[in-house]
Formats: sequence, C-alpha cells, structure tokens
Amino acid sequence: MRAMLVRDVGEFDLIEMLAKTLEEEGVSSPGPGDRNDFRLRVSVGDDAAAWDAPAGVTVLSTDALVEGVHFALERTNWADLGWKSLAVNLSDVAAMGCAPQYSVISLGLRGDLPVEGLLDMYRGMAAVCRRHGGKVVGGDVVRSPVLFLAVATVGAARQVRGNDDREPPLLTRDSAVPGDKIAVTGSLGCSGGGLRMMLQGPSLDDKTAAHLRDAHNRPSPRVAEGMLLAEHGVLAAIDISDGLVDDLGKLCESSGVGGIVHAARVPADEYLRRAYPEEWISLALSGGEDYELLFTAPARVMDDLTSALDGPVSVIGDIVDGPPGVRVLDQGGRDVPVEQGGWDHFARCRSQD
Amino acid sequence: MRAMLVRDVGEFDLIEMLAKTLEEEGVSSPGPGDRNDFRLRVSVGDDAAAWDAPAGVTVLSTDALVEGVHFALERTNWADLGWKSLAVNLSDVAAMGCAPQYSVISLGLRGDLPVEGLLDMYRGMAAVCRRHGGKVVGGDVVRSPVLFLAVATVGAARQVRGNDDREPPLLTRDSAVPGDKIAVTGSLGCSGGGLRMMLQGPSLDDKTAAHLRDAHNRPSPRVAEGMLLAEHGVLAAIDISDGLVDDLGKLCESSGVGGIVHAARVPADEYLRRAYPEEWISLALSGGEDYELLFTAPARVMDDLTSALDGPVSVIGDIVDGPPGVRVLDQGGRDVPVEQGGWDHFARCRSQD
Repeated sequence: MRAMLVRDVGEFDLIEMLAKTLEEEGVSSPGPGDRNDFRLRVSVGDDAAAWDAPAGVTVLSTDALVEGVHFALERTNWADLGWKSLAVNLSDVAAMGCAPQYSVISLGLRGDLPVEGLLDMYRGMAAVCRRHGGKVVGGDVVRSPVLFLAVATVGAARQVRGNDDREPPLLTRDSAVPGDKIAVTGSLGCSGGGLRMMLQGPSLDDKTAAHLRDAHNRPSPRVAEGMLLAEHGVLAAIDISDGLVDDLGKLCESSGVGGIVHAARVPADEYLRRAYPEEWISLALSGGEDYELLFTAPARVMDDLTSALDGPVSVIGDIVDGPPGVRVLDQGGRDVPVEQGGWDHFARCRSQD
Repeated sequence: MRAMLVRDVGEFDLIEMLAKTLEEEGVSSPGPGDRNDFRLRVSVGDDAAAWDAPAGVTVLSTDALVEGVHFALERTNWADLGWKSLAVNLSDVAAMGCAPQYSVISLGLRGDLPVEGLLDMYRGMAAVCRRHGGKVVGGDVVRSPVLFLAVATVGAARQVRGNDDREPPLLTRDSAVPGDKIAVTGSLGCSGGGLRMMLQGPSLDDKTAAHLRDAHNRPSPRVAEGMLLAEHGVLAAIDISDGLVDDLGKLCESSGVGGIVHAARVPADEYLRRAYPEEWISLALSGGEDYELLFTAPARVMDDLTSALDGPVSVIGDIVDGPPGVRVLDQGGRDVPVEQGGWDHFARCRSQD
C-alpha cells in the first residue's frame, strides 16, 4: 500500500492530525507538572495561541531549518528532524538564561511528503519538550517547493526563589568584561564530526557512529544549565550554533572585548578524537551546531558553577582588553590558525557556485 | 552597475543592514509613544529578543509566505511584500482582540536576491508597524532555494481602562452561540479580485486597478477594530484569510453551530462590482486574503459597535442551532451554491498536478 501523502489529505485534515499528535503526546496544553502561573487559554486551532502570564521578562526567538541546506531527509529521520527544529530554538532561549514556554511552528510542505513522517516529526518535537520544557501550541501549514520548519519560541526569565522583587537575570552577548574567564558546557565537535561522517565517512564502529550522528541530529539544548548560569550571576552567554570561535567572535564583538582560547582546554570527547585523530580540534573549534552554552564570568563565579552544574563545564580561556577578536593559542602560546567565518550561509553558497 | 546581491554581502553583513534599516525606521525599539509597561531590553542581535511585560494575557501567532505559492516577485514590490508578511500576522493578533507587541522574522533567502530589495521589504514591515502597532525585534536569516518569510508575533490583551482587575477579553473561534448576529468589517473580495486581475486581466482603469492591487498586496490588519470588538463584549471572531464562507465554516465548526449568510448583505465595493460585474459576489464570498474581521455577537452588541467603530461594519447573517456548516441565501431565501474548501494549499496543489 502506498504511504499517505500530504496532498492526499489536504491542509485542514493534516493540521487536525498534527494537533491530535501534540495532544496525545501531552505537549499542547499545560499538565499538572507545569508552573501554574502560566495558564494556557487557547491552543492549536485559533488565530493565535493565548495564555495568562505573570509579569516578568519575556523572550522571543526564531530559527528555521531548510531541506537541502540544514538537513537532508536521507541523513536524518523524521523524529530527529522534529527534535532538532525545536531544540535549536530552545537553545536560543537557554542562551538567554530563560525557560522555554510556548512554541509555534510554520511548516512549509511539499505535497509528496508522507503524512506518517510528519506525525513522527511532531512526536520528535514533543520528545524535546518533555525533556527540556515548553509546549507546542500552534502554527501554520503552507505549501512550499522545499520542506522548511520555522519555529518561534517564547520563554520567560526564572524568578529567583524567595526574592520576587529581584530583576530576573538575563544572559546577553554584550556583557563580557576583561578579566572574565571563558567557559563552555559539554564537549564540542561531535555534531560537526557526525555531519562529516555522514557526508564523507570514515565508516566507524556502531557505537561511535551512533554517538556522532546523535550529536548532529538530536542536540540537547542546555535549558537547565542556562537558568543555573543566570542564577549564579553569569551575565554573558551565547549558544554555539556556528562554531566555538565564530560564536565567541560574536560575543566579543557585541561586548567590545578580545577573547583568548587555549586549544588544549577545549573539551572534545573520546569518540570524536578516535574518529578524527587529525581533525578533532578543528571540528571542536569551528564545526558548529554544538548547541552548548559559551559564557563568561569572573573566576569566583566559575568556581561556584563547576560544582553547581550537573554536567561538565570547561574553562577554556580569558576575556581581555583590546579590539574585538578571538585568538586561539597552543600549549606553547603560539597562535593556532582557525578557519574563520564559521557558518555563513551565503559564503557556503558562494563556495558552491 | 550590477545590483548588490545577497551572496555578495554574506549573512552577517546582511543581518546588520536589515537591523540598521529597522532602527532607522524606528521600529526596533520602543519610542516615546509606546506603552511604557512593555520595556524592550534586548533587540535584534542577541539569541532572542527580551522585554519586561506586565502580567496579562499573551498571544503568539505565526504565518509564512512562500515565493511562487503566496506571492510572485513579478506581481508585487518588495515594500508591499514586507508589509503583507507582517500584516497577515498582525491580523491574527487582531482576530484575538489583542494589540501586537513584538515580531521576529525567519527569512529564507536565495543568494541571487537584491540586497536593496530586502531593505525595501524591511521598510515595508516598518510601515505596517508604524500604522498598526508592534515592533520588529529580531529574526533569523537562512539560505533557501525559494524565498520565504515566516513571521511570529507576540501580542497582549488590552487592559480595560479603569478596570485593572477585569480578565482581559479575548476573541476566539469557539464562542459563537445561536442567536448571535454575524458581521464583518470593511468590504470583501477586492483582494481576490486584485489577484485575478494581475493573473488573468481584465485590464482596468488605473484607479480601479490600483485599488484592487493594493487590496491584495497591502491589506490593512484590523488591529484597532479587534480591540474595540473585545472591549464591547464580542467573544467570537476570526480574520478572513481563506474566504468568508470558509472562515465562517471554521468558526461554526469550532463553536458547534450553524451559520446563515444573506448574500445581498455581503459588503463589496464599487470598484469590485464594476471590475467583475458577474463574479464580484463569488469573490466576496470566497476570494480570500481579505484580512477583515468576521465576528458574531448579540444584536444589542452589534448596535453599539456600529457607532463605536470608525470604519464600516456589515451585519450579514445569523448563527443558528444545528450541525456546523454555512448556508448562503439569496434574496428569495434560496441557497446560493458556494465554492467550498477555500484556500486549501494542497488541494490547489492537487488541481495543478
């Protein structure tokens, strides 16, 4: 039997099926575990989603994934695509030190896509919500010659417990100051390594291959970590989407400071080092799509954090006076040449011309 | 001299140019005329936009326009495209009875698009914000084989003056009840007529042609009207994007009621009637993309509204008991056959196969 395609069911039935999937997965309306100061009043199916929100800092981010540019259906499965499309938005909210609340999805669909695949994609969105927070409360489905997912997510700053009058902390790109230490959560490069493996090889043992592929297709947004950073007094952060050096460059540019990274301190795991014994450091420095948090803070704040955070944190360098820019140094203090420019979509476009 | 193209400038310079345009146009940060209970803290250029918001009902909507599906660059100019992409979102917020606050744009761009065109597009977004409210505070630019604009807009219910404890009113699709009158703002069909004229002719006098084209390319979201409806006790509304009959059908379906429309009362202006003496009624009933508000309320509320609203309001029918569905009647009380299904993107896709 031929799979049911988007053009077989039509827009309105499809929207109903997607909405039902979100409902079954429990992410279209607040459950008993939700903070009850956010009360959803209108969900999927009206002109807009609506909720009662308490006073406070609200954040809004958007990110789009486009077929053939950010993903290929041959290299990812539908559930992972749903996971990633939402994860990259939750990561933006995490990089502000906020908790994701509600997301809406603008879906551009080809008529020949399988409906069951799209339902799986929504199950993937539901999975990342259940793990990292937030709900999917609406969207828009349009026809498009190329599949795209544009997600917008609203988040809220966490009130500091027992201190309701305190201005909620917010992590921004422009608040790094000379003397700050530079740190990252997790380990870097596996996502870039996973993409390279899928595109060019090498063929690796199953466990390594799965680890690298998952790092690329199913990144973990550092939502809990972002809120902890804000609570502990960190002020400057960005999530790593375009590569460590590139995103640190943006943070330094916004803050008007320089950044020095010690290559030997950049965290990369054993899977990546084994798979790419020559290239792991360049993947960790500029592979991109890590969705780890890159942040700066005084040394005493970093000390606090290392014990407060569940996962690994690595202090990798220093913020210094001087013109904005990033230097990467080896153990002898020599500059390591780094592929600059990171993930400029149109530069890659040029190089493919 | 060749026009500067997207691929000539690259992603980051382009984002900077777009952000600068928004700033010059005065819509990237709150001005002195803004309600000062919304204070923008972080705008374009961080991981997310951030603002301080008072407690209250928040709404979130999203809509996408795709090249070749919703618009063709040969039939619209860049400023109109920017206007419309934002207007359709403001219209969704208006249909909830709320004021638009902050929008973010996910832009999918071909490398061969002219940069000056994109700046004009942002000027068009700025123009609709200045006229109807809200700011553009961020976004995401990605490469795409087809131009698309996915907009997400956050809005807020208006507090009723001198009554801060009152639950802010919200217009939803599911609150029509038998006995309600059905009404629409403005006049219908000109947008559909404009599209037909651009695609098939006829060739019309300049003034008529400009009127129909503007109705299609530069719709006015009924933001002020939506808030007035909510303030006057209207509960049920939807904006007309897919056509009067189709959108009334959705409202009836959500509310579990029937709807009867008297064709003779459907508002259509002289331009449309002159341009399409045979087809104006079918354009008014199901042309779509009118972005007028369709709403229901008891007769006494309708009487109040007619004097309270600046622009025209037409009472066109009645909500009745019975299975959800819409009937359109002529002056003799006979059913008028109506093209059902409205703007199902994938149905059109099928018919083009």
